[in-house]
Amino acid sequence: MSVLDFLFGPPLRTDEDREERIGPEKGIPIFGLDALSSAAYGPEAALTILIPLGAAGIASIVPISISIVVLLAIVYFSYRQTIEAYPNGGGSYTVATENLGHRAGLLAAAALMIDYILTAAVGISSGVGALISAVPGLQAHTLALCLGILLLLTIVNLRGVREAGGVFMMPTYLFIACLLLLIARGVWNVVSSGGQPHAVVAPPAMPAMSASLSTWLIVKAFASGCTAMTGVEAVSNGVKAFREPVTKSAQMTLTIIIAVLATLLLGIAFLVRAYHIGATEPGTAGYQSILSLLLAAATGRGWFYRISISSIIVVLALSANTAFADFPRLCRVIAKNGYLPYAFSLRGRRLVYSEGIYVLTILSAILLTIFGGVTDRLIPLFAVGAFLAFTLSQTGMVWHWRKSDHPKAKHYMVVNGVGAVATGITVLVVLVAKFLDGAWITVVLIPALIAFMVAIQRHFQSVAEETTETAELSTVSICAPLVVLPIDRWNKISVKGLRFALSLSGEIKAVHTVIDDKPDDLAQAWPHLVEEPARKSGFPAPELVCLCSPFRYVITPVVDYVLDLSSKNPDREIMVIVPELVEHKWYHYALHNQRAQGLKALLLLKGNQRITTVTIPWYLKE
Amino acid sequence: MSVLDFLFGPPLRTDEDREERIGPEKGIPIFGLDALSSAAYGPEAALTILIPLGAAGIASIVPISISIVVLLAIVYFSYRQTIEAYPNGGGSYTVATENLGHRAGLLAAAALMIDYILTAAVGISSGVGALISAVPGLQAHTLALCLGILLLLTIVNLRGVREAGGVFMMPTYLFIACLLLLIARGVWNVVSSGGQPHAVVAPPAMPAMSASLSTWLIVKAFASGCTAMTGVEAVSNGVKAFREPVTKSAQMTLTIIIAVLATLLLGIAFLVRAYHIGATEPGTAGYQSILSLLLAAATGRGWFYRISISSIIVVLALSANTAFADFPRLCRVIAKNGYLPYAFSLRGRRLVYSEGIYVLTILSAILLTIFGGVTDRLIPLFAVGAFLAFTLSQTGMVWHWRKSDHPKAKHYMVVNGVGAVATGITVLVVLVAKFLDGAWITVVLIPALIAFMVAIQRHFQSVAEETTETAELSTVSICAPLVVLPIDRWNKISVKGLRFALSLSGEIKAVHTVIDDKPDDLAQAWPHLVEEPARKSGFPAPELVCLCSPFRYVITPVVDYVLDLSSKNPDREIMVIVPELVEHKWYHYALHNQRAQGLKALLLLKGNQRITTVTIPWYLKE
Repeated sequence: MSVLDFLFGPPLRTDEDREERIGPEKGIPIFGLDALSSAAYGPEAALTILIPLGAAGIASIVPISISIVVLLAIVYFSYRQTIEAYPNGGGSYTVATENLGHRAGLLAAAALMIDYILTAAVGISSGVGALISAVPGLQAHTLALCLGILLLLTIVNLRGVREAGGVFMMPTYLFIACLLLLIARGVWNVVSSGGQPHAVVAPPAMPAMSASLSTWLIVKAFASGCTAMTGVEAVSNGVKAFREPVTKSAQMTLTIIIAVLATLLLGIAFLVRAYHIGATEPGTAGYQSILSLLLAAATGRGWFYRISISSIIVVLALSANTAFADFPRLCRVIAKNGYLPYAFSLRGRRLVYSEGIYVLTILSAILLTIFGGVTDRLIPLFAVGAFLAFTLSQTGMVWHWRKSDHPKAKHYMVVNGVGAVATGITVLVVLVAKFLDGAWITVVLIPALIAFMVAIQRHFQSVAEETTETAELSTVSICAPLVVLPIDRWNKISVKGLRFALSLSGEIKAVHTVIDDKPDDLAQAWPHLVEEPARKSGFPAPELVCLCSPFRYVITPVVDYVLDLSSKNPDREIMVIVPELVEHKWYHYALHNQRAQGLKALLLLKGNQRITTVTIPWYLKE
Repeated sequence: MSVLDFLFGPPLRTDEDREERIGPEKGIPIFGLDALSSAAYGPEAALTILIPLGAAGIASIVPISISIVVLLAIVYFSYRQTIEAYPNGGGSYTVATENLGHRAGLLAAAALMIDYILTAAVGISSGVGALISAVPGLQAHTLALCLGILLLLTIVNLRGVREAGGVFMMPTYLFIACLLLLIARGVWNVVSSGGQPHAVVAPPAMPAMSASLSTWLIVKAFASGCTAMTGVEAVSNGVKAFREPVTKSAQMTLTIIIAVLATLLLGIAFLVRAYHIGATEPGTAGYQSILSLLLAAATGRGWFYRISISSIIVVLALSANTAFADFPRLCRVIAKNGYLPYAFSLRGRRLVYSEGIYVLTILSAILLTIFGGVTDRLIPLFAVGAFLAFTLSQTGMVWHWRKSDHPKAKHYMVVNGVGAVATGITVLVVLVAKFLDGAWITVVLIPALIAFMVAIQRHFQSVAEETTETAELSTVSICAPLVVLPIDRWNKISVKGLRFALSLSGEIKAVHTVIDDKPDDLAQAWPHLVEEPARKSGFPAPELVCLCSPFRYVITPVVDYVLDLSSKNPDREIMVIVPELVEHKWYHYALHNQRAQGLKALLLLKGNQRITTVTIPWYLKE
């Protein structure tokens, strides 16, 4: 167990839960990494769409970013209210299920689950992508790097929430500090130069305009920029991870995350326009990220540039952590309602929902392996799930406040209503703008996932219906079982089996499979070895049943005999005693035929409710 | 089961054994393929060594072949006597064990086992090699072809001896007929031309003499030619496969095999000299096999050439079959003495020793895969094992006749004595001549294999000693077990478990693991649900034991409780009842946690002689 302890820390007692809870300082890295890191790719995604507009496109980034920040603000106020209303965790799934019914809940759940799996895979691979463009020599190890980071995230998260927060604090705050300093310096440059700042390293000139400004292009840029808003859901879903006062801690965390994100988005948009920085075509030789160009333009390529770029790379790679923080919590709530196996709702040795972490790791590893660590093409799939979940959550909150007698219910209802409409429109915009780029995959996957969860729920439902019992114990017709004991030859193991059988029942059938046609020693010796001693001491004599096996099978004759006995005694339990050698060294098992295992498996497969098997172990001495 | 029936035929009853027995017509292909096919590579192996002697070397092949045939004759007479003395199968292992003791027997067994595994791998790969030199396009599929033939041999042999004989008859007799016709035609040409036959297709001229005739070279050529004698052992080991009169059938088979082989060896040597055909360097561009050159010289490259070459290729590929026929029989005898697991001595569904066939297939497949289907380098390893086994067998027979009161015992002893000396000298010759070429590997492997078999025997010995029982059943202090029943919640499954427990014992501990700190429903309801109804109907009330699990483990608390109970009740049996859901579809198992399996495994691992587990199945309705 010491390896487990070393990797994951010693197990935590259930009552240590309180100490594991976190405040905003750790909540921001844990639940905010995904949202904050989007500052590094959201504006870039929008600007890439605007490349064909040339210099005119750069100007459009400011209104687009303002629209996104307005939407962000609407979503922020809505989720603030949700956290207040659901102090036990108010993710979209919970809110939608409680207010709009199970179907809406499952829709939100499926959308979010797909979103989180994508976040994990794409987050890691985009971080590794950024690293590789900084250190091209690592190209050949793309997949290995991705899987390495995935493993790191898995282990850190399995170590518990508090430790994960500790690990991710430094890079997160470094990232925030660097970008805020960049914006401050940039804005100072712009203001002090009267709006015409001099770029320390000039950005490449924009290509000539090759398309005309159209609403469609602006809408597409907006839809791309909206990827910056995924991950906002996380805090409200993870309220239970925060320490007392729970609601306040969670709200404070959300406020800081959103405020920082809004500042970054607006600041970047402002500076990009002031410095005339446009996106470069990804995948081409001259490609540089927007933040790299902006840093170079505002501060030059000195140590600040290098530190900032490093922090961006690290935060991108770790942004997958939001998925690790939230996916298991989402699975837990779904499992509590029976739509996922019960194990998802159990907390592991470090008080985290380990099953969810395992599943997320496995699915992300599969995605990363299939795509060889390059998952750019999955990015368009992103925003649909997140905004669908937002919309369902906000709509659910509108219903929630309608039924509520909270003094401000009306006011709250309006806020959530505005959120629902705004995010609902965004879903449609993103879906239309990105449908052919890959959003259709989400449209296909969501119903499949819902069908899967419904099937699971039906299965558990039917198991529960079959096994539910409300009546008290009935002792009618309890009667000792018929005991069947396969005996190969007379040895200590068969003696042990017989003694055990005699302790349980008066009706014992010792079955002996005869393979060759030689005269059988055991049958001749039975009366002397067993019957007489049993009778003498007042026990009923066990009967020896010899089974012929013309085809030299040893297991099937016993199974057939037991099934026959069971059908001839429809009111009796049949208990089959299976002696089993327990070896000291695992490789010794290769020397023995695994008849005990075979017999037990076949009895389970072909048997019925009334046939039970007993394993009698015989431990070999060392 | 229909797939099995299709591949291997329906199972055979033990009493169908007699019909499965074979006569010489099928015995020759089954046990003789290895020996007969060596006519295709034995003379070639000797001639290859003689290449440096140029034309002078060709002349030496006649005395070398005569020596080999004399040795063959000695071995033949010896084995004829062995068959008579051991009508139940007189392989080297049996003869050496019975007359010289277990150590000599194991030495023979190890030598033969290694020899057969090599025969299987090398036989197949040499056949495929011959095929590829005829159809070079198949080069890329070498390994696939090898494994395909291996699979074919495995399936045919698993179908039973009689069927295998049938399959291999045609190619074997075609091969014999072709080579005998070739020799007849060649000898006619030589005689009718007065000893100076005209070659239809002239063989390439021999290179100039580059080494002088030395004893060492002749000895090496003789040692190489001796590979022609492997496989002679097979018949005497497989006597039991022959039909009545067993001894006569086996002797007849051996006689025909040896007579044909001797004719082929002498005929080829005679013609090679008459036509001045020398070996060409294998692996070089101008390489052609001796038989191909001889066929072309004596009969031209017409249809007879093509048929003969085809039959040679097929027989080479199938020569591995001797290993399949004999290796399992060898393993069976060894297993009967406890030096291999018992399963090797059981006959499978088609009355063959299936385990031995599996093991041979797996080991050959591994060898072929490691060497990529090209196993030329293993050929030098061959003859050592075979001749070592011959020597031990002959020496054993000398001892056998010494103790025998057979009227001709003295005479027989001399024959076997000559055989022992001759083969013993050959072992030394081959070992010295081929030591650096690879024979040293056999010298290393044989002791390793012996050590392995001795370790197996020791293990079985100690198991037998631990479990042997000669006394009759003792009923002293038989007493109903303490029953432990893990209960998660109140449902039909736990009711079933309780009723079963009540039928077996008066002392029942229902253990209930409490994970969270919520008030527990089951503990409150226990008196009403269980205790009162049990008492009312006169049963002792089962006790509910609540186990705290601060670390949320569910299995270990139960295991710890059982171990504790066991140590507190050192004279009692503890029976743990484990209810288990039986699903209809295998993938449903993924939805449930495998606690039942985990609990049973952990109990077996940590438990002791007195702790038994009962599986109570609950079959879910479809």
